[in-house]
This record gives sequence, C-alpha cells and structure tokens, in this order.
Amino acid sequence: MTPALDGAHLLARLDALAEIGAIEGGGCARLALSDADRAGRDLVVGWMREAGLAIEIDAIGNVVGTRAGREDLPAAMTGSHIDTVRTGGRYDGNYGVLAGLEVVRALDRAGIRTRRPVAVAFFTNEEGARFQPDMMGSLVFAGGLSLDDAFAATDRDGLSVGAELARIGYRGRAAPGARKPHAFIELHIEQGPILDEERLRIGAVESVQGISWTEYTVLGTSNHAGTTPLRLRRDAGLVAAEAAAFVRRLAREMGGDQVGTVGRLELHPNLINVVANRAVFCVDLRNTDEAKLRHAEAEVSAFIARTAAAERCDVTARTLARFEPVIFDPALVARVEATALARGHRPRRMPSGAGHDAQMMQRVCPSAMIFVPSVAGLSHNVKEHTEAADLVAGAEILLDLMLELAEI
Amino acid sequence: MTPALDGAHLLARLDALAEIGAIEGGGCARLALSDADRAGRDLVVGWMREAGLAIEIDAIGNVVGTRAGREDLPAAMTGSHIDTVRTGGRYDGNYGVLAGLEVVRALDRAGIRTRRPVAVAFFTNEEGARFQPDMMGSLVFAGGLSLDDAFAATDRDGLSVGAELARIGYRGRAAPGARKPHAFIELHIEQGPILDEERLRIGAVESVQGISWTEYTVLGTSNHAGTTPLRLRRDAGLVAAEAAAFVRRLAREMGGDQVGTVGRLELHPNLINVVANRAVFCVDLRNTDEAKLRHAEAEVSAFIARTAAAERCDVTARTLARFEPVIFDPALVARVEATALARGHRPRRMPSGAGHDAQMMQRVCPSAMIFVPSVAGLSHNVKEHTEAADLVAGAEILLDLMLELAEI
Repeated sequence: MTPALDGAHLLARLDALAEIGAIEGGGCARLALSDADRAGRDLVVGWMREAGLAIEIDAIGNVVGTRAGREDLPAAMTGSHIDTVRTGGRYDGNYGVLAGLEVVRALDRAGIRTRRPVAVAFFTNEEGARFQPDMMGSLVFAGGLSLDDAFAATDRDGLSVGAELARIGYRGRAAPGARKPHAFIELHIEQGPILDEERLRIGAVESVQGISWTEYTVLGTSNHAGTTPLRLRRDAGLVAAEAAAFVRRLAREMGGDQVGTVGRLELHPNLINVVANRAVFCVDLRNTDEAKLRHAEAEVSAFIARTAAAERCDVTARTLARFEPVIFDPALVARVEATALARGHRPRRMPSGAGHDAQMMQRVCPSAMIFVPSVAGLSHNVKEHTEAADLVAGAEILLDLMLELAEI
Repeated sequence: MTPALDGAHLLARLDALAEIGAIEGGGCARLALSDADRAGRDLVVGWMREAGLAIEIDAIGNVVGTRAGREDLPAAMTGSHIDTVRTGGRYDGNYGVLAGLEVVRALDRAGIRTRRPVAVAFFTNEEGARFQPDMMGSLVFAGGLSLDDAFAATDRDGLSVGAELARIGYRGRAAPGARKPHAFIELHIEQGPILDEERLRIGAVESVQGISWTEYTVLGTSNHAGTTPLRLRRDAGLVAAEAAAFVRRLAREMGGDQVGTVGRLELHPNLINVVANRAVFCVDLRNTDEAKLRHAEAEVSAFIARTAAAERCDVTARTLARFEPVIFDPALVARVEATALARGHRPRRMPSGAGHDAQMMQRVCPSAMIFVPSVAGLSHNVKEHTEAADLVAGAEILLDLMLELAEI
C-alpha cells in the first residue's frame, strides 16, 4: 500500500498548536522556554507518544521522537522548531515538525516498516527572540556551542536558559548530538516572497545565506540646529543616514543575491532642533558567497570610516552575529528536486535568506530543505500565511523523501 | 556721575537664580509654570521690588518692572525669559533679565532719572519645552496668539497653561501688550559657536532666521531583511536615510546661512533584521531669507516625494512650526553696533539661528538684540557657559543703550 499524507489532519493540528500562545490577528507568541513554549511542547510530545514514537529529550531540550526501523541504523530525520518570536505566525517551524508527524502517521496507516528509523525532532530556541544565539538547540546538537555556554545565556530579566529549561521540565538527560542521523530534511515556509511572486509551489533549498550583523556607534557633538554653521557640525545622525543609503546602493551594485539592510537606527538626543551627538545603527549584510560577503563588509566599513572622518565623528563597530554561508548536501538537494518533479511540481532551486536548524544539522549529516510559499513573503508576523494546498504539497514531498532516505 | 555696571553683582545673581531648579552638572530645570519656575519668578520679582520697580503682571504671566521716567512716555524696555528647558544652562534667558536689573541699579547708584521710563520684562514660556508654542508670552504680548488659545495649551499630563498660571499665582490682571514700549533690546547668549570661534565679544543681531519644521511619515512594508530581494522592498527607513543625507547636501549647495538638520528620526519596528515599515523624521530648515527658505522647503519636499515613489512608499508631511525670518529695526541694530564700537569692541553683525522674545517684540516696537559668546556654541545643555568678562561686557553695552533709548 502506498502511504498517503492526511492533509486535513496536518491543517487541524497546525490550528490546534496555534491555539497555544494565540495572539490577536491569528498569530502566536511562544517564546523559547516560556510557559507557552512548555504547553506547546507538551502538546506535540503527546502527539509523538500517540504515534508510538520513542521520545528522547536532550540536555538542551531538543526533543526527538523515533519510529523504529527494520535495522538499528542512523535515522532519517526531519524536524524544525516550535518556538516563535513575540509576534509570530502559526506556520514558521511548527509546519515542519507537524508535517514530520504526518509522515509517521502515513507510514503507520500504510503498514510500512522502513529499513532505517524515521525520526522527527524539534529543536530548542530556534528564533533567538528571548535568548541568544538563535538556532541554539541545533547549534548545541551540532557541537557548535557548549552546553555550559548555552545554559548561561540570559533573557532581559536575567533568567537563564539552564534554569528555564529545568523549570519547564525540558532539561533532559540525553547528550545533545550523541546519535548522528543518516540525513536531515527540514520542511519550512519560505519566509520570503520569491515562490509566491513566481507562483511556484516548491523550493529546493541549496544554501543558506551567510549573515553579517554589525552595530556601528557614531559619536559627534550635540549642537543647536539653528545656530551651528554646517562647517562646525559633527553630526552623528548624518553619518548614519549616509551609511544606510550606502548599504542599499552597494547591495544593488553588487547584484546577485547580495542584500543589505539598515533596519535599526537610533539617534540621541533625537530632538528636532538638536544635531545628534550619537547614532547607533545596525548593518545586516547577506550573501551565499563568503568572498562576496567579505567584500560587502569591507566596503561598508570603509565607507563609514570615510564619512565619519569627513564629519569629524568617531565611530566604533561591534560584530553582533557572523555566520558563513552554508551549502547543503548537493545529492540531497538533487533528491528534493527530483521528488518534487516526480510529484509534478516545478521546483525552484534557491538560497534561504533566513537561518534554519538545517544549516546546523549540515555540520553533522547530509542536510537539505524544502520550501513552500509565504503569501507576500510575510513572516514573523501575525499575518504570515501559506495556502493549505501548498502546505499539503510540501508535506507530500517530505513523505516521499523520508521514505526514500529511510530505505537507503 | 556716569553710571557703572556692577559686574560682580550680576554674576552673583546669576548664581543665586541658578540655585533654583539646579540640576547635576551646573544646569537648571525650570520648566515654564512649574513649581521651580514659580520659585524663580518669586526671587526675580523680589529683586524688582527691592529696586523699587512698579510691577505689572499680565494675564499670560509676563512680568514687567518699570522704573519711572521724567515723562510719562512709552518705556525703553529690555528683558528676556527665566524659564528653561529640561536640561538647561544657567545663562540662556536669565542673563538678559538680570542684566536689565543691573541697568536699573546702575541708574539708581548714579542718581540718573531718564526721560522715558526704563522697563525690565520677563516673558512666560519662551522655551516651549513644556507647552507649545514657544515664545508664548511675547507672542501673546505682540497679539500673535489669543489668550484663550494660549490658556488652552496643555502639557504631556494634560495640565493647561491657564490652570498652571493660576496655580502658581502668575495669571495677572493686566492685558498683555496694552502698553507698547518705545523700543526693546534683548541681551542674550549666542547659543551658537560663531562669536566664540571668531574670538569676538559682541554680536549685533540684525535678524532671526526663519524656521521651518516638517515631520515626515513614510510608510512601507515590514519584511525579512534576509529573504526579501531588493526589488521587492518598500523600505521606509531607506527613504528617511536618503532624505536626511539630502537635507545636508541641499543646505551645503545653497550656502549662505541656509542650514538643514534631521535630528529626529525613528524607525519601526526598529529591528536589525526587519525592513522598516515606518519611518518618522523631522526636517529643520532655517534661513534669514524667506524666498530661499521656501526654495529649500520645496526642494526637500520634492526629493522625498521622488525617493518615496521610487521605493513605492507612501509619505505624509505635517508642518510642526513655521516662522518667517524677522528683520530687526535697522536703526536700532546700528545703535547696538555703534555702542559696542564706542566701548572698544569689534561687534559682528549676525543673524540669530534660534528664536527669541525680541522677534515677537519687533511686531510691536523697534527691537534688536545683543549677543555675547557661548563657549563652543553649547546651549540647552548643563555645560552651557559664557565667560564672566563677556557677560559683563554685554551688560555694559545694554546699560549704554538703555540710557540712550530712554532719553530719545
């Protein structure tokens, strides 16, 4: 019997999980290790038990539910995360985890026992909205962050990851990453507009953009906006504005998938008639090519140094985050593409502009991702939406892929 | 006997007044119509009584102390204000009022009875830090704002000017502006760096720059900074940054005394990895020439419309303040200059970049201003400073001028 995915059940469970931490407008707020996160975890773990999965919780709170295979081999794993940002949508993360459970249910209904175990995981604190760094659970799983460092991370109120994990009952006994999977596939909404704009249903994600976040602080002199001649000004706000405009100009000139954004910018004292003596702003640069990303970083840094010097301002820079681009396993990406083609889709090879647990898992085992469209590219937003037909189509590709990976 | 100004007494009184509402760093916080403002008013009114002045308080709380002349003619008036911004210095406003009282004391000591009365005034709420508009007392005095409108202005807590005036006991009976002075001279610190930079002691102020404050709100779309291609963005923050850079470029190209500043700029949601969907920023443009100021306004407005359209953003503009340039009485400005020359100074003709009560008084009678240097141009700042020798020099020019004006 060919296994068939129960799309209606997937949609119903997405709705049920979205009830927990529901916020106005249809979104969710389940910050990592909060009471709402615990309630969400409890619900999903209950569904894992219901499906007969063997559940393992590791010390950083990653949860892996495993369906035994015919042989005791490394598992074909899928999964994502169920924590959200403060004003999150209902699909981001949740979709990949619950689709994984539907894969298990489909195998059960079809009476299929795969050669390898099939595992469904959800990783702790992917969003990084409450504790930094983001992708924390998968990063610890991949050995990129020590447990001690992860435990020590604190939120705004000084509460630590270690204490909060214990409080909500998800500081498990297993050593993170002790069992390496055979392969890892993450199904996720795109969180960007490309598939939606091009009216395509399936993305075969071949890479994750490298990310460079730098915070610049420019110091000038606070002066009266009416009485201070231009030549005597040291306007920190002007340097920030010139920099923000340059970031866009540079990204446009570089072309390809280079993007650049200044989304955060603050002036002090921020008064209409006072020249700003301090400007703090963050430059977000991304590229799938590490050399190009470095070039962009150098250009921005040189421009800001030049512009600040011309305005006689001082400037300091602080790296807030820096991830090199990740290239997913080419054979696995080709498999995603082939599976989608076999289902009659026109898959689009594409990079991911956002970070995902799969990029950490690529350090451990061959990994890849499947994207489905986000309407208007909206994400991290209560208006985040993906059409039901797209959600089901993505889950069907996942089912086919997992079945294939569990047999090889 | 030639009247002589008592510089030490002036400095001691500046210190004594600065005790009221004193804040860390040597500054003052006496927001208009606050308890601190009342205490400051009571102290200065006490000094007026001590000097034997006839005191008149008008309905908007302006206080005029008059020393009788030989004839019952319109008075030669001087004065300024004693309210401060939240983190004000000790000279701004206070200096002109207390120097006026020293003029009276010098006349008394010399036994001089002038032909015209000599009046010393302080006007209510010049700063506009708590209630808008600024220069409120002198604007009402000059008939530019009705008493009802002034009374109705409220602070952040909803307290009104009318109620607060009554509460502190300064809602007087006199009709504002009922008695027009013969001439008005305001002595003030420059609040800008020009005299200090050029090592000059006396400014003969011939005009006040016109002021144009416009708040722009740009609306775009909030999107993921990693996943959204440049061509699909509607980045409100980018439009704001381009506008801020343009304002400086335009002012530089126009030259003369055109200045332009974006000192206030806020992004929403102001997150490092989210394209801003809203930017609010204020453009401060000033020029002594109304036609040039209009040209600058039109250029900025057109640039912002063009830039927003290119980014497919919506933009709205709101005028927050608009004052035409004020030209002081040329004969009186010439007199300021001549008086300074006679005292051995090299007076500098200059515009005022900041607003002052004298610009309202120019609507009522011939008016002009004397400036003394502000060290490093600092003002509205606890570090505001003017050297004692400069304070005394300015007060001496005021004395000579008032004596002259009171005789003609």
